[in-house]
Amino acid sequence: MPGQKNMKKLKNDSLLCVGLDSDLDLIPKKFLDSKTPQYDFNRYIIEQTHQYVTAYKPNLAFYEARGSQGWQELALTMKYLQINHPNIFTIADAKRADIGSTNKGYIRAIFDELNFDAITLHPYLGKEALKPFLDRQDKTSIILCHTSNPGAGELQDLKIDGKNLWEVVAEKVSQDWNANSNCMLVVGATYPQEMTRVREIVGNMTLLVPGIGAQGGDLQAVMRIGLNKKRAGLIINSSRGIIFSNNPKLEAEKLNDEIEKYRIEAV
Amino acid sequence: MPGQKNMKKLKNDSLLCVGLDSDLDLIPKKFLDSKTPQYDFNRYIIEQTHQYVTAYKPNLAFYEARGSQGWQELALTMKYLQINHPNIFTIADAKRADIGSTNKGYIRAIFDELNFDAITLHPYLGKEALKPFLDRQDKTSIILCHTSNPGAGELQDLKIDGKNLWEVVAEKVSQDWNANSNCMLVVGATYPQEMTRVREIVGNMTLLVPGIGAQGGDLQAVMRIGLNKKRAGLIINSSRGIIFSNNPKLEAEKLNDEIEKYRIEAV
Repeated sequence: MPGQKNMKKLKNDSLLCVGLDSDLDLIPKKFLDSKTPQYDFNRYIIEQTHQYVTAYKPNLAFYEARGSQGWQELALTMKYLQINHPNIFTIADAKRADIGSTNKGYIRAIFDELNFDAITLHPYLGKEALKPFLDRQDKTSIILCHTSNPGAGELQDLKIDGKNLWEVVAEKVSQDWNANSNCMLVVGATYPQEMTRVREIVGNMTLLVPGIGAQGGDLQAVMRIGLNKKRAGLIINSSRGIIFSNNPKLEAEKLNDEIEKYRIEAV
Repeated sequence: MPGQKNMKKLKNDSLLCVGLDSDLDLIPKKFLDSKTPQYDFNRYIIEQTHQYVTAYKPNLAFYEARGSQGWQELALTMKYLQINHPNIFTIADAKRADIGSTNKGYIRAIFDELNFDAITLHPYLGKEALKPFLDRQDKTSIILCHTSNPGAGELQDLKIDGKNLWEVVAEKVSQDWNANSNCMLVVGATYPQEMTRVREIVGNMTLLVPGIGAQGGDLQAVMRIGLNKKRAGLIINSSRGIIFSNNPKLEAEKLNDEIEKYRIEAV
């Protein structure tokens, strides 16, 4: 991916990320008899979709909801991916950020124990606090810039000398925090205008894009606006629309085909 | 505590919080032979300190660092507190915040499974995203306002119409997000000027104050500045200075005595 040093060689030239948001309340009943329902479900989803994706992104909330059992099943999922699909990028959607020394606990858990390639992070504590993440040249820090939720603007649209807070975050990350070329930004598909501006600010930096599908983001707009000059630089996430569909393989293939169609059309 | 509806009756009229930051690399060696070293250490700390504290605050990073085993020991710690010291307030220093529906996973884990009374939260996604936390009238949402780290100002001091971002957060939380009277704010002891202003903005709202001790915060200044009109409204956290001292009981007693001395002196 553009701007990423030390990135692992990726299996597929795809921009699709499948969100392994394996909410126990929503996964098909047939998995619930297992002792490891989230893990079994994830394996099924991975086997159905791996040929179409560049990345998997479990949101940790759905595993923490089940306490230590959930952590175990997340660890099993990560081990399964490492053994069977080592060239698929893995993102811990953890939205963490603490003061410097405390972050080491999260780094140990998410980078070193679970072996994720990347983690999502809140920017509010500043670069100094996030340094332990940013210093890991072998891993990617994905900073929240403009999130996909309807109320994202309450803080993110606050004006600083005429700029929105999210613009300031995009500038800081691309011009300063990214010294190791290991940062990406989260920009919701539900905010295409903001994405246009972020792309202007960050050059070829990769954007992680949630909000397609259930949240109402427009894929065609995102593809027209968000691609960088190498016709890449986007990781388009879909969670529920794929994993809880009747045919995850078909839905992943369809969405990937659609992405590729717009990718080719984009100038 | 002021401004808190549905708060449990507290055991001690204290403002001291002990941070159960039970880093496995730092706890005394005698606990490491146990199968549950963090839990055993926490029980020891709790038994040494419970008569002096209003709250315990485990930072989740130190437990997550040990994966599912850490979660299990955190759960054991919480169960132990509920049985033996049910009238001590418990804060999950988790610094979470995701979009609305996803937060339900964290709520299930931290409020309903682990039974914490409160959680620390990032403000960046706005009130709409945090609604599932704020809607829990039986629980407390503690929003990061001005954090204690040296680089906190990078984003938090950005100026919005002449106000700092942390002032805007304090205003929003006290005037809007706190409709259920179940919010507190994090303000670092290392920023006494900012704390003065936060106290002006939020009236009697309780502030969770990290940064005393190792981080260099000045307790006397905090007590002069931070108390509300009821000579309360502060939860003063100390972690390492107590839990990794040779005599946690003595250190907790000393710090609590010092807090009470300044509390009486404060006008």
